[in-house]
Amino acid sequence: MITESFVIPDAANILQAAARINPFVNRTPVLTCHAVDRMLGARVFMKCENFQKVGAFKARGATNAVLSLDQQLLRNGVATHSSGNHAQALAWAASLAGAKAHIVMPSDSSKVKVAAVKDYGGIITFCEPNLDSRESTLERVIGETGATEIHPYNNVNIIAGQATAALEFFEDAPGLDILMTPVGGGGLLSGTCLSAHYFHPSTKVVAGEPEQANDAWQSFTQKHLIPSVSPDTIADGLRTSLGSITFPIILQHVHAIVTVREESIIKAMRFLWERMKILVEPSSAVPFAALMEGKLDIAGKNIGIILSGGNVDLDNLPWSHHE
Amino acid sequence: MITESFVIPDAANILQAAARINPFVNRTPVLTCHAVDRMLGARVFMKCENFQKVGAFKARGATNAVLSLDQQLLRNGVATHSSGNHAQALAWAASLAGAKAHIVMPSDSSKVKVAAVKDYGGIITFCEPNLDSRESTLERVIGETGATEIHPYNNVNIIAGQATAALEFFEDAPGLDILMTPVGGGGLLSGTCLSAHYFHPSTKVVAGEPEQANDAWQSFTQKHLIPSVSPDTIADGLRTSLGSITFPIILQHVHAIVTVREESIIKAMRFLWERMKILVEPSSAVPFAALMEGKLDIAGKNIGIILSGGNVDLDNLPWSHHE
Repeated sequence: MITESFVIPDAANILQAAARINPFVNRTPVLTCHAVDRMLGARVFMKCENFQKVGAFKARGATNAVLSLDQQLLRNGVATHSSGNHAQALAWAASLAGAKAHIVMPSDSSKVKVAAVKDYGGIITFCEPNLDSRESTLERVIGETGATEIHPYNNVNIIAGQATAALEFFEDAPGLDILMTPVGGGGLLSGTCLSAHYFHPSTKVVAGEPEQANDAWQSFTQKHLIPSVSPDTIADGLRTSLGSITFPIILQHVHAIVTVREESIIKAMRFLWERMKILVEPSSAVPFAALMEGKLDIAGKNIGIILSGGNVDLDNLPWSHHE
Repeated sequence: MITESFVIPDAANILQAAARINPFVNRTPVLTCHAVDRMLGARVFMKCENFQKVGAFKARGATNAVLSLDQQLLRNGVATHSSGNHAQALAWAASLAGAKAHIVMPSDSSKVKVAAVKDYGGIITFCEPNLDSRESTLERVIGETGATEIHPYNNVNIIAGQATAALEFFEDAPGLDILMTPVGGGGLLSGTCLSAHYFHPSTKVVAGEPEQANDAWQSFTQKHLIPSVSPDTIADGLRTSLGSITFPIILQHVHAIVTVREESIIKAMRFLWERMKILVEPSSAVPFAALMEGKLDIAGKNIGIILSGGNVDLDNLPWSHHE
């Protein structure tokens, strides 16, 4: 078990996380497409975490974090505030251990997401839709229940869990020159670059980020953590700020962060649906959008992309509004 | 090579087809979902032929049929009439062999499908949108070019090619009690039940068919071939009649054909998109719709479903019209 003082997961932590979560999570497939390879002049491999439990890679970190707790802690349950995939993932992971998951959700959360958290057995407390209310409500819930907070990304067990996607990817795709993920809070990105560093150091890790939520790019470029202020992107999973644990890992091990336009995200998402039949959410399409924009020198290279999730509202698709 | 007089593919023909097409087609993944298993009280395995080349299982049969031709025949190309996935599949398969594909398409074919056939290098001849015109135009094209007709399903090499999906499925999913496919012309269904018969005889093959295009169910029940007359279903791949080769195979080897309502097809399709993130076309959702309707006794059993394809018009989704 990783303790609080042990801030950066090491290789053993990631391998332990993989062993711990493997009975519960899906080994997601890696898909390829000749049309993509021809279009980009590279070999592109996509690891489909949209087919992961709860529809997103978040199941990995949440499972590792929950199953890393001892029985005594589990008795009081776990808690987080989230309106996104982490809420579902934590509710689902807690149910595996027979533990309670207290989820603080803003009152304007989509009905679909609230229903999904309830489906997985999560106990929801609603709060005002702002960060202050989310944090104070979570503090109150933790005070009342004694639950252990599981932060969506700024948590070493979460990071070690997310790192297992890259671990599988290195096994299933040949010699990746570049491995791409989107970046929001940096849980997937920091885990991915740690896995590359420990297990496949010839792979350069590159993140894709929306131009209109480019706090990670700014932080990376200016080498100090700049919070996300009024992000305005369809990629709803990428609106958060980096964390005190994820940022230093990213700064040390990530090769580059590239930003993309909103219209490119929608175009890339539609391409993945239409041509590859892979149903992804906007955040997942960001790295592929960067390739379509020609932001990277990839000629002749092997490029891996982790497609992070597939939770979308089918009654509200982005191209319905853009024609 | 299978000759005309050799009407039913044998086990060797199917194994040869697999060896012939394996370098070119995708080994499609088998996905599962606990929510589905819980809902249905069975273990359900889905083989995702929507991730196949050209987005449908049709790539298998077309590749086997084209690559079974000798160089002299290939010089004059291949030909078919089709407004659906077979048109794309044949154009793509011919391009693998450097051969021409002459595709007769009705003048009211969707722009998307016409563009896809052109993308794969198909040579399109338009005709009136009725069967007489399709057949007479194809006859003329064949007369002018000397091309070999590759029928979309009533062709032993096509059937042997489609049979390879089940072959892979038996390897990748444990002891299937029931294996389901949709049925239109019967190419996939006849290939699947032959593979079960030769390679995994404990598996019962069951087809799903739209109630509003139930000619296969009628033919199966009455034991003589009844053509499809004015089929009215959203499952556009399943509007065709069975063939003189596919029907006897189906009659002999299929366990049951079950029919489903239109609203169930749409509901099943949406479930596969929303919960499993698998982008399928309406035809593919028909077997799953039969399970959701409770049409089969599946309690505690292992059920395989071949999801046949994923070619849809994203600007015209069925649930947009049903709210």
